[in-house]
Amino acid sequence: MAKEGLRMAQSDDQRLGEFDLIREIFQPLQTFTSPDHRDSLVVGIGDDCAVWRNPGNLVFSIDTLVEGVHFTKDIPPSDLAYRALAVCLSDLAAMAAKPSFFTLALTLPDAREGWLKAFAGGLESLARQHHFPLVGGDTTRGPLTITIQVHGTTEQPILRSGARQGDVVYVTGHLGDAAAGLNVWLDKTDTVQFSKHQAYLVERFHRPTPRINESLLIAPFVNAMLDVSDGLLADLGHMAKASDFDIEVDPEKLPISIANRDVSGEQQAKVNALSGGDDYELAFTVASDRVIEFESFCLSHDIDVTKVGSVVAKEAGDKAGVARIIDGSDFQVVQSGYRHF
Amino acid sequence: MAKEGLRMAQSDDQRLGEFDLIREIFQPLQTFTSPDHRDSLVVGIGDDCAVWRNPGNLVFSIDTLVEGVHFTKDIPPSDLAYRALAVCLSDLAAMAAKPSFFTLALTLPDAREGWLKAFAGGLESLARQHHFPLVGGDTTRGPLTITIQVHGTTEQPILRSGARQGDVVYVTGHLGDAAAGLNVWLDKTDTVQFSKHQAYLVERFHRPTPRINESLLIAPFVNAMLDVSDGLLADLGHMAKASDFDIEVDPEKLPISIANRDVSGEQQAKVNALSGGDDYELAFTVASDRVIEFESFCLSHDIDVTKVGSVVAKEAGDKAGVARIIDGSDFQVVQSGYRHF
Repeated sequence: MAKEGLRMAQSDDQRLGEFDLIREIFQPLQTFTSPDHRDSLVVGIGDDCAVWRNPGNLVFSIDTLVEGVHFTKDIPPSDLAYRALAVCLSDLAAMAAKPSFFTLALTLPDAREGWLKAFAGGLESLARQHHFPLVGGDTTRGPLTITIQVHGTTEQPILRSGARQGDVVYVTGHLGDAAAGLNVWLDKTDTVQFSKHQAYLVERFHRPTPRINESLLIAPFVNAMLDVSDGLLADLGHMAKASDFDIEVDPEKLPISIANRDVSGEQQAKVNALSGGDDYELAFTVASDRVIEFESFCLSHDIDVTKVGSVVAKEAGDKAGVARIIDGSDFQVVQSGYRHF
Repeated sequence: MAKEGLRMAQSDDQRLGEFDLIREIFQPLQTFTSPDHRDSLVVGIGDDCAVWRNPGNLVFSIDTLVEGVHFTKDIPPSDLAYRALAVCLSDLAAMAAKPSFFTLALTLPDAREGWLKAFAGGLESLARQHHFPLVGGDTTRGPLTITIQVHGTTEQPILRSGARQGDVVYVTGHLGDAAAGLNVWLDKTDTVQFSKHQAYLVERFHRPTPRINESLLIAPFVNAMLDVSDGLLADLGHMAKASDFDIEVDPEKLPISIANRDVSGEQQAKVNALSGGDDYELAFTVASDRVIEFESFCLSHDIDVTKVGSVVAKEAGDKAGVARIIDGSDFQVVQSGYRHF
C-alpha cells in the first residue's frame, strides 16, 4: 500500500459502521460457555483484554489459514469458518484437553454482511456443540487470513513423545477422505453435480470432525497421541521422532471409506489414507497389554478405532525415529505429507 | 493461488529446511520465563498444543498487524517485531496485568534467514526485559501478517468502564510522538538524514514503550484505564462510552515532547497528541480525593504522568458518553482516530 493508504487508514472514520457490524455479528458467539464455566469469563469482548478466571492447566494452540495456501477463494464462508475452528479444536483433542474458549484474529479484504454472517454461522455450529465461546479477537483489513487460538484444560496432557516399544498404533474414523474430497473440490466444474460419494468426501474436507469426545474417553488408555493433519505417515513420523522409536504401519489395515475407494480407486485411496493429510483423526498408541481392555471399551462406548501399526525398536542407522510401511509390504509411498511452511 | 498451488503445498517436501530454520530461530525465545513461572511451562513449542500450569486469572489479547495497512514494507524487521509485541504488551498494561507468555502466528511470503533472525531479535529484547517467553506459534506462507496473543495474570483487572464522575484523567509519558514519527518515516527520502528530533520520533513510532511497570505500580489508585492506540480523544471516547460519563480534555495540558513541537509545529503537535494514536501510553482516571496521594506516589516512584482532563456528567442529549475538548477551548479537532477496520 502506498504512503497515502497508510495515512488514510489513520484518519478514515467511515469504517465505524463496519466495525460495529463485525462486533454485532461475532458477539453472540461469546455465549456458548459450558455450564462448568458459567462464571469463568470475567471480562469478554470489548475491553483491552479478556479475562478468564483460573483456567486450570491451560492447553492452547494457535493456527492460521491463508487464502490461496490453505483454502481456495470458492470455499463457502461457513465451511471455511467451520474448518478453521475444527482444525484448532483437533489440536486440543490431540492433547486430550477439554475445550474452554477461543479467540479469533480475522484479516479481511472487506466487510460484507452476508459473508460475515455465514462465517460466524460456521463457527457457531462448533461453538455450540462443544460449549466453546469466542471471547476475544481482532479484525483487520488485508488479504483473507484466519488465525484462531483455542484454549482448553487438562489434568494430564497426552504428548507425542509417550509412545513405547510394543505399543499398538490406532487411528479414529477413516483416513484419506479429506484428501479425496480436496481433489473432488479442485476438479469440480459448474456443469457436473457431485455424486453422493463425492459430496460426502468434500464435506469431510470442509467440515472435519474434531475428535474431542473420543479423545477424552480414550485418554486413560493412551500413551502418545496426535491428530492427523499432515498425513498419517508424516504425523506418525513426528511421533516416532519425539518418542525415539520407529513406527511401522500396515497399509492393508488402513480404515478407508467406501466413498474414498469408489471415487479415488483402490490404490489412490490408500495413498490418500497414508499421506493425504487434513483428516484430523486421532492417531495414538496403547500398550500391548491393555489392547483387549481398550478395544472392549471402544466397542461398548461406540468409538470407531482401527489398529494400523505398532511401535518398534529403531532400525540400526536411524538417527531419529521414523514411521514407515511395514516390512515386506509392496506398497510404495509417493507423497510425503503437508508442510505448514 | 491456482489449483496447482494448493495441490503443490500439500505434497511439497522441500520446505522442511525452512520449517526447521524457523523453529531454530524462534525456540530460544521460549526461555525468557519469569523466575515466578520457572515450572509453569509444562509443554512448550513442538507438540500439538502448549500447556501452562494454572495461570491464575488469565488476561489475554490477540492483535494482528498487516503489511501495507499497519506498517510499510520498509520498516526494519526488528522494529516490526518490537512494535508488534509492544502493542500487545500494552494491552496487558491497560488491564494492569502482569505478563506471562505469548504466542505468535506469522504469515510470511518467504523464509529468509536474515529477516527471521532480525525479527526474532526484535521480539527478544522485549521478551527478555519483561520475562515474557514465546511458548507456541504457527508459521504459514502468504502476505506478511503478524498475529500475537499475549497472556498475563491479574488479581483485579482494571476496566474501561470504571470511570466515575469527578475522576481526574491522566496519561503517562508524551502524546503525539508516534504520529509525528510516522509522518517523518513516510516523508523520508534517501538523501536527507533524520535530525536528532526526527530520529527520536521515528523510534517512538517503531518502538513504543509498553507501560507494564507503570501500570502495575499505579493500579491501586486507578478507576478506569486503557492504552492510547487510536488517539487520545478516540480512546477516551471508548472509556466515556463504557463508563457512561463524558470526559473533558484540556488541549493546553497535553504532555507534548520538544521533539514533536520542533518537528510538527505547535498546532500539528497538539493534533498529533489529541488524535494521532499509536503512542501506547496509558490513559486512566483517579478519584479526585486520591489525587494528592497519587501524584506524590508518582513523584516518589519516578512515574511520569500528566493530568489532561476530568470525568463529568453527560451533556443533555448525549446518548452515550463521549470525550471532548474542554468547553471554551478554541481548539478544533480535525482528525478522529484510527479504526482497526
